[in-house]
Amino acid sequence: MKQASAPIAIFDSGVGGLTVAAAIARALPDQSFVYLGDTARLPYGTKSAETVTKYAVQATRALMRFQPKMIVVACNTASAVALPVLAAAYAPLPVVGVVEPGARAAVAASREGRIAVIATEGTVRGGAYVRAIHALNAQAQVVQRACPLFVALAEEGWTHGDVPELAARKYLSDIFEAANPPDTLVLGCTHFPVLVDAIRKAVGPSVALVDSAETVAREIASIVRTTGGGGEGVTHRFLSTDAPERFARVGSQFFGATIDPAQVELVDLSA
Amino acid sequence: MKQASAPIAIFDSGVGGLTVAAAIARALPDQSFVYLGDTARLPYGTKSAETVTKYAVQATRALMRFQPKMIVVACNTASAVALPVLAAAYAPLPVVGVVEPGARAAVAASREGRIAVIATEGTVRGGAYVRAIHALNAQAQVVQRACPLFVALAEEGWTHGDVPELAARKYLSDIFEAANPPDTLVLGCTHFPVLVDAIRKAVGPSVALVDSAETVAREIASIVRTTGGGGEGVTHRFLSTDAPERFARVGSQFFGATIDPAQVELVDLSA
Repeated sequence: MKQASAPIAIFDSGVGGLTVAAAIARALPDQSFVYLGDTARLPYGTKSAETVTKYAVQATRALMRFQPKMIVVACNTASAVALPVLAAAYAPLPVVGVVEPGARAAVAASREGRIAVIATEGTVRGGAYVRAIHALNAQAQVVQRACPLFVALAEEGWTHGDVPELAARKYLSDIFEAANPPDTLVLGCTHFPVLVDAIRKAVGPSVALVDSAETVAREIASIVRTTGGGGEGVTHRFLSTDAPERFARVGSQFFGATIDPAQVELVDLSA
Repeated sequence: MKQASAPIAIFDSGVGGLTVAAAIARALPDQSFVYLGDTARLPYGTKSAETVTKYAVQATRALMRFQPKMIVVACNTASAVALPVLAAAYAPLPVVGVVEPGARAAVAASREGRIAVIATEGTVRGGAYVRAIHALNAQAQVVQRACPLFVALAEEGWTHGDVPELAARKYLSDIFEAANPPDTLVLGCTHFPVLVDAIRKAVGPSVALVDSAETVAREIASIVRTTGGGGEGVTHRFLSTDAPERFARVGSQFFGATIDPAQVELVDLSA
């Protein structure tokens, strides 16, 4: 049994998962977390399932030195391909991904059961969202689209204006201009919520947008409540596999609060 | 002394350096090459000098098993930050980067000595192009601009149309609409030549565009000619650190010829 004051361990390929960390901090202000961003090897979304699984195992191993009470895989790509391996390797430690909570939120939000999922190449290729949605509603019509450029736009801070709006139209118009278009769109990558205005313009006002960060935070809150209360001396630690200064600068946008570069610890996962 | 039939070893963070490999194959059709793309860890351009140097050393070590006659660092970011380390570690083997040939071509092309360099964040931060240009022409006026989104656009195959044109304008308009704008633009990343039409529209018809691939190939040809003639049984080998199928598919665009996925060998540099 882990101590109640043990941190929640969160990992992501980079800084996008800080949207999940922020939602966890809001839902559970009395809990400590340690966040690892594998910025030396991001993005995961264009890489093979084998490589992403290897990276996820290395990241989890690095987080185990903090004796966490659970592991949160904040990266959609890693959740989609590596969750069973991690859950088996670290049982009975809870390992929570973002795909199942996202699928649950989408099924709950969809009036007609027509759901579109936008994600990275790796997540789309693995089909994890399609399987998770169909497990909840076998009649759901699910369409997927890989939007890898959204990751680069979010990282570059080009979140508003012509370029993201054109990119969103190019990726999404054919899906949402078809007969019987989806009524719900899952933002299946932690980078995408910062592009929500451009995405909204491309899909129109009536489509429900689902961001898994809040849903994941609620799921984690329910697990934490069943395993014991909060700790004293709440800490938020950040680890990065490359360039702490860049992690802090770009990451602050996703975290929604300033991260001090001096507080970001550089770690080497390949050693 | 290496055998004349020893291959030329070329490495890049991914598939962009295949533009350099193609130029070498055109300039030296009687030479074999082995090309390594570190697709499991790309892009290098957003990562720190320390991390890029570590990756470049690992890539070079993996290529040494082919007993190459020289090492070509086709990645601008790695050329900009890791070349001295590699040259010292592997002397007397020639180690050729793309920054100095690009700087030479820019100085030769520029009528007025006003040169703009577009590159990745890592290349711009290191300032290697500025130093290399000033070593050749101390009076040159050099302006740099990091264009990281161009890498994602090239990888996504969005090389023509509204999105790359808008992105090119957003990155370049202020530089080229200023008084006394640059007369020469260096494409300081191997991904950028496929975006040349969009870049040309943003900078206007009179600016000289410099792509280092051809210049590098000429430099390599002159080294090869001084060290001995061509070999029999010319082979072109491809190594990738991730997803050979994706390397072949995306890489064929940059190489300008079809790469058979079955001929791409998967290698692990971190082992």
